[in-house]
Amino acid sequence: MRPARIAAGILIGAALAGALAPASSPAAALPSWNEGPSRRAIVEFVGRVTKPGGKDFVPPAERIAVFDNDGTLWSEQPFYFQFAFAIDRVRALAPQHPEWRDTEPFKSVLAGDIKGALAGGEKAVGAMMLATHTGMTTDEFSRTVQDWIGSAKHPRTQRLYTEMVYQPMLELLAYLRAQGFKTYIVSGGGVEFMRPWVERVYGIPPEQVVGSRGRLKFETRGDQPVLLKLPEIDLVDDGPGKPVGIQQVIGRRPIAAFGNSDGDQQMLEWTAGGTGARFCLLVRHTDGVRETAYDRTSSIGRLDKAWDEANARGWTVVDMKIEWKRLFPFEK
Amino acid sequence: MRPARIAAGILIGAALAGALAPASSPAAALPSWNEGPSRRAIVEFVGRVTKPGGKDFVPPAERIAVFDNDGTLWSEQPFYFQFAFAIDRVRALAPQHPEWRDTEPFKSVLAGDIKGALAGGEKAVGAMMLATHTGMTTDEFSRTVQDWIGSAKHPRTQRLYTEMVYQPMLELLAYLRAQGFKTYIVSGGGVEFMRPWVERVYGIPPEQVVGSRGRLKFETRGDQPVLLKLPEIDLVDDGPGKPVGIQQVIGRRPIAAFGNSDGDQQMLEWTAGGTGARFCLLVRHTDGVRETAYDRTSSIGRLDKAWDEANARGWTVVDMKIEWKRLFPFEK
Repeated sequence: MRPARIAAGILIGAALAGALAPASSPAAALPSWNEGPSRRAIVEFVGRVTKPGGKDFVPPAERIAVFDNDGTLWSEQPFYFQFAFAIDRVRALAPQHPEWRDTEPFKSVLAGDIKGALAGGEKAVGAMMLATHTGMTTDEFSRTVQDWIGSAKHPRTQRLYTEMVYQPMLELLAYLRAQGFKTYIVSGGGVEFMRPWVERVYGIPPEQVVGSRGRLKFETRGDQPVLLKLPEIDLVDDGPGKPVGIQQVIGRRPIAAFGNSDGDQQMLEWTAGGTGARFCLLVRHTDGVRETAYDRTSSIGRLDKAWDEANARGWTVVDMKIEWKRLFPFEK
Repeated sequence: MRPARIAAGILIGAALAGALAPASSPAAALPSWNEGPSRRAIVEFVGRVTKPGGKDFVPPAERIAVFDNDGTLWSEQPFYFQFAFAIDRVRALAPQHPEWRDTEPFKSVLAGDIKGALAGGEKAVGAMMLATHTGMTTDEFSRTVQDWIGSAKHPRTQRLYTEMVYQPMLELLAYLRAQGFKTYIVSGGGVEFMRPWVERVYGIPPEQVVGSRGRLKFETRGDQPVLLKLPEIDLVDDGPGKPVGIQQVIGRRPIAAFGNSDGDQQMLEWTAGGTGARFCLLVRHTDGVRETAYDRTSSIGRLDKAWDEANARGWTVVDMKIEWKRLFPFEK
């Protein structure tokens, strides 16, 4: 990028952060959000914390907003997309693992029987993750993810997984950044799985991604230093692990948090527990036509306890079916 | 900060990043560096990676620079300053721990015999760290650090520890930022020990600090969520742990790395191992008058293997005595 363009970009950013705060036209910034309680709540909060001299003013450096990924920024049905990646990797790696023909869950995966593979529960998923996410260097893994994410298709829509992102949330990310916020992903998904593509898709750079992670080991191969992905879990960035991940990586308490499931409950609690103005929002998957309707009994993205807490505490709950004009960017 | 000032600040930053790249006057940006091989090497590297259209141009987003802290940004003699904090905390907490009167290393610390306390080696230091750095919430610990760092004095100079920072390195941090770099600390010191004061002292925000860390546990006390500091180590961000910390928190490979000891060797190797222009620098503590001269045999900040590697690979090695006009900001 040429300096002139950088300077122009910074100028535009400054203009948006300064002159337009509070936003004069939320409809223009959030076109895929219907006028409704959630959009009003978002705009009202942003107006309060960005109003110079206001009692709730928050300096830009402290405007940290955290976003769950699966089910909040992109879809998570009919299964977590990272699980689809693991399945595809098992298939790709099978020739090097003749023993998988007789070993579950690999045997079922290779027979195309995903339900059979999942019958082994967490242990089966864990075995697939180990086999497909560890034992290589971080650079090798990153290239594998990049190749996959550039070509693999969603089973229902036949779209790239990176097209299965929520248009209203893309607008929200951009709106918050224009208002001086620093946007972070805080996901139960693997950090090394997200970093290769989130900048292109969400405008969020690698250093603003918090996720589950395995242990790494520094080694020298020939004269090349590498980081080896070890088969040991370092952080499960889900549920009570989310505030831990936030503190370890960001070291500041967010002022706004966005999620969709019980796995986000503690992240929202941690955010709400700070002093000053705070904003917590849950996305509810109510649209069985444009997507999948699910909440209290879903095995993926269950929204039960966090929903009760949101209602009790007055957190914003988005009804996707009613409040989102458009779900995915590819919709008319 | 008012938006007008923010916009002005951003404008100045943009002007520096744009109009002045490559730097027209390094002498003005780095006044405490004598004209010499290290300043020339720094300025030459920065000029190359910031030159629009040049073959070594690096986009601003990828201009990640990592700095060790102890011995690189601030002094580490006669002992790591975090160790001084631990000693002071043992003294402050002693009334609540009558058993310490008969238990080493606490007994020696309370008798003012630091050498005696250190006779117990790593185990003794570990016991002191556990007793003073765990068992409280992250917020409580942060307040304790803030109180201490605002009043504790260096034993030799009687200056605040935050005054024992290297003026040439403060200038280097500011110079790199003005040239579009994102500056990170990557230190063996505790991340929770550094975050409360590094923004004020170095201009580095909490989210750009990588350090050693203990495990954390999310809990609710009454209706307040807290993060409890557990007595378990999560990452020793030193030696081969530094590339691990960089990958976990930043997720990009730095293009420039600055250290002073063997604990920085793998960080420099990891930085040097990337493609494109790279810069690695070691600070050599050669000044026995203004500071302390130490290298191959020092128990603190030993510079031995990393020095040999720097010489073999042509990394920049700063001779503080010769190349730094001024060491500390308080010097005339």
